[in-house]
Amino acid sequence: MTQQTGTEQTGPSSRTADGELALELDRAHVFHSWSAQATLAPLAVAGGLGCEVWDFDGTTYLDFSSQLVNVNIGHRHPAVVAAIQEQADVLPTVAPANADLARGLAARAIVGHAPGGMSKVFFTNGGADANENALRMARLHTGRDKVLSTYRSYHGNTGAAIVATGDWRRIPNEYARGHVHFFGPYPYRSEFWSTSAEQETERALHHLERVIQAEGPGSIAAILLETVVGTAGVLVPPPGYLPGVREIADRYGIVLVLDEVMAGFGRAGSWFAFDRFDVRPDLITFAKGVNSGYVPVGGVILSDEIAATFDERVFPGGLTYSGHPLAMASIVAALAAMESEGIVANAARIGAEVLGPGLRDLAERHPMIGEVRGLGVFWALELVADRATREPVPAAVMGQLKSELMARRLLPFLAENRIHVVPPCVVTDDEVGRALAVYDEALSVVEAGL
Amino acid sequence: MTQQTGTEQTGPSSRTADGELALELDRAHVFHSWSAQATLAPLAVAGGLGCEVWDFDGTTYLDFSSQLVNVNIGHRHPAVVAAIQEQADVLPTVAPANADLARGLAARAIVGHAPGGMSKVFFTNGGADANENALRMARLHTGRDKVLSTYRSYHGNTGAAIVATGDWRRIPNEYARGHVHFFGPYPYRSEFWSTSAEQETERALHHLERVIQAEGPGSIAAILLETVVGTAGVLVPPPGYLPGVREIADRYGIVLVLDEVMAGFGRAGSWFAFDRFDVRPDLITFAKGVNSGYVPVGGVILSDEIAATFDERVFPGGLTYSGHPLAMASIVAALAAMESEGIVANAARIGAEVLGPGLRDLAERHPMIGEVRGLGVFWALELVADRATREPVPAAVMGQLKSELMARRLLPFLAENRIHVVPPCVVTDDEVGRALAVYDEALSVVEAGL
Repeated sequence: MTQQTGTEQTGPSSRTADGELALELDRAHVFHSWSAQATLAPLAVAGGLGCEVWDFDGTTYLDFSSQLVNVNIGHRHPAVVAAIQEQADVLPTVAPANADLARGLAARAIVGHAPGGMSKVFFTNGGADANENALRMARLHTGRDKVLSTYRSYHGNTGAAIVATGDWRRIPNEYARGHVHFFGPYPYRSEFWSTSAEQETERALHHLERVIQAEGPGSIAAILLETVVGTAGVLVPPPGYLPGVREIADRYGIVLVLDEVMAGFGRAGSWFAFDRFDVRPDLITFAKGVNSGYVPVGGVILSDEIAATFDERVFPGGLTYSGHPLAMASIVAALAAMESEGIVANAARIGAEVLGPGLRDLAERHPMIGEVRGLGVFWALELVADRATREPVPAAVMGQLKSELMARRLLPFLAENRIHVVPPCVVTDDEVGRALAVYDEALSVVEAGL
Repeated sequence: MTQQTGTEQTGPSSRTADGELALELDRAHVFHSWSAQATLAPLAVAGGLGCEVWDFDGTTYLDFSSQLVNVNIGHRHPAVVAAIQEQADVLPTVAPANADLARGLAARAIVGHAPGGMSKVFFTNGGADANENALRMARLHTGRDKVLSTYRSYHGNTGAAIVATGDWRRIPNEYARGHVHFFGPYPYRSEFWSTSAEQETERALHHLERVIQAEGPGSIAAILLETVVGTAGVLVPPPGYLPGVREIADRYGIVLVLDEVMAGFGRAGSWFAFDRFDVRPDLITFAKGVNSGYVPVGGVILSDEIAATFDERVFPGGLTYSGHPLAMASIVAALAAMESEGIVANAARIGAEVLGPGLRDLAERHPMIGEVRGLGVFWALELVADRATREPVPAAVMGQLKSELMARRLLPFLAENRIHVVPPCVVTDDEVGRALAVYDEALSVVEAGL
């Protein structure tokens, strides 16, 4: 194996033998998430910078997946890398019961972007256990059991988080009780026979309130919602929906948890996605964008009211790596860089002026695109076999599209019949232009073959 | 805040203002695990090296807690720090679907210490989601629902892991179904009216088999056991118990999951604790010692038979940071250093020749010590008000002991009526000698006051 030093790794280079070793070891020893293991053909990634990654042959790819929609600040941001390196020299790990300076600074930086009256952060290892702990807090705070979440949602892979999840990933994992699912708004494929966004909002709120009444309002601890539904569709809530949910939650004394794991920290063109929807949650869960995943971390931001529940009463949850110093240092550096470099503003501008219009333009030329939706650097192209019936394209078409995109050196994010267009928040106009050209070509090739 | 650089941080120094800021920010913004928030008085840790940490006034403490029993390699091991720093320069993060060289090398290093026929690793963020995923694998592999674990156990804080947990930490968190608890062996406080370790083994096995028969063997997917029960008591299994469990599991087609999160990677004086108990699991879960917690990570080692279940069938679990490159690089470096520096052998020798005998010697002089048990660098002193009745000392005594130990600059690990003596695996004879003197003095002071 080539000696890895900072100098040698600043850009792509050919290390074919290392690439072969990476693939060989992966297939021999690494068990993969959400996969049938015998069917995998992974790409061996050797390095990255900004919106690009490269393989061991030195071939570069434009990363319009942000990996798992987490590298908001781009790959290998020098300030975040340096912060991790410095913290490793000082104190790589410390137990959560101790006080840690980096942890305090990270928590202060995070609550600085939250609404007033939310001053404490509980740190976890990722988004799943952030949601686990938010549900624990809501249940203990209200003394109620049930948790409501939408069928189109993903909230993580652990015991309670996976059953809170509404989509297909829940089905083989239903071992927790007290989770109830309802339909959220989705104007393009309405569950409520609505014909406008306004009607969708009104009917989705009516449906939610009817589910609450039918389940028994006094039994419901929390409503857990992705502010903008992520992997299950990039579903931007129609105007008025989230404020309506807030009103219903208040009416029945239910805690509103907004899952900002994917939508938060720049992805939606704002610090929190809910900043754009006139709503204020009781608990906020986060992960991914907070430090772009450079060190595993997640957390819950608590309203002061819920935090006070645990002033004298033991909070019965915790974990060894809560507030891990390396993660904390990376958060402090990532948020500082996002502020000083205007990265969130860039995501907003790109979405409004470059990426959004560019994708809508694509839709005009490709009948396969049934809907374009999104905001910031968080978009979906919903692909259909027929614009009138909105029938999704078959899986084979998505497989073909993936090949065409990869062949043109773009790392895509595909889910069901959709292309999620989710570059880092630092993406430039030029990179968006290159990516749009690739999507255009790939769609043309696939459409021509149908 | 003082600029933190490698040079300034190589040893303790006085940075009182930073210490005050760390405490102030902690109390204002950090929500703590397993605590009533208003009652906390954390120690602000500024740095560490080997078996010592220091605060911001430059006061050093001997760390006989290994933080949360995870810093097996000691604080700030230079090879592990360097590996993290180098990896951060290459590729700080990558999605699990890609192949990563550091990940393949880490998986290979881990399975190199596992029994034959276990060649794949699924990486998670910590011990809790390692257990979550092991249970998922066992349930899907067997097509059965129930999971058996002991009342004295801790398996993590997420939805299924916390209900698999048997001790008090489960009670406020019971939202998952299919978890059944039984009593494990504990000769000092037998649940089976036994009067010898041999009898305890025999009766505990009989009890387990009766629970299985009463629950319905065809309904049970897994038996989940800490090889050596950790926070719930440092309970070393009596001879024959684990081989007996293996035999029962085989008889009923049940998957045996050994939780090596705390016991593994040197803690018990062997690579895996089960190496010392003549038993072979189907799934091994790990975290903590694998990289000493320098970067959050955990995982599951799969038998080839269980791995094959998911060759053509999708494994319905996963997480964004599965196989995180920084964690992987730290595993490769930590395991290499543990091998080349003989760290596991040191833990075994210290346990057998220095720490074990020293603690037994303490017990001869302190009637408060009801039992000394352990192995490697994994010991408990069980403190009793009366050796005849074995009545635990009251909580106030434990609080007093903690103060006396901290005043003598030793970071202790206390649980219920026990002192867990759990230094890093790199602990020296001299450090053990100093710690034994501190335990001795603190016990004398507290005994004198009773």
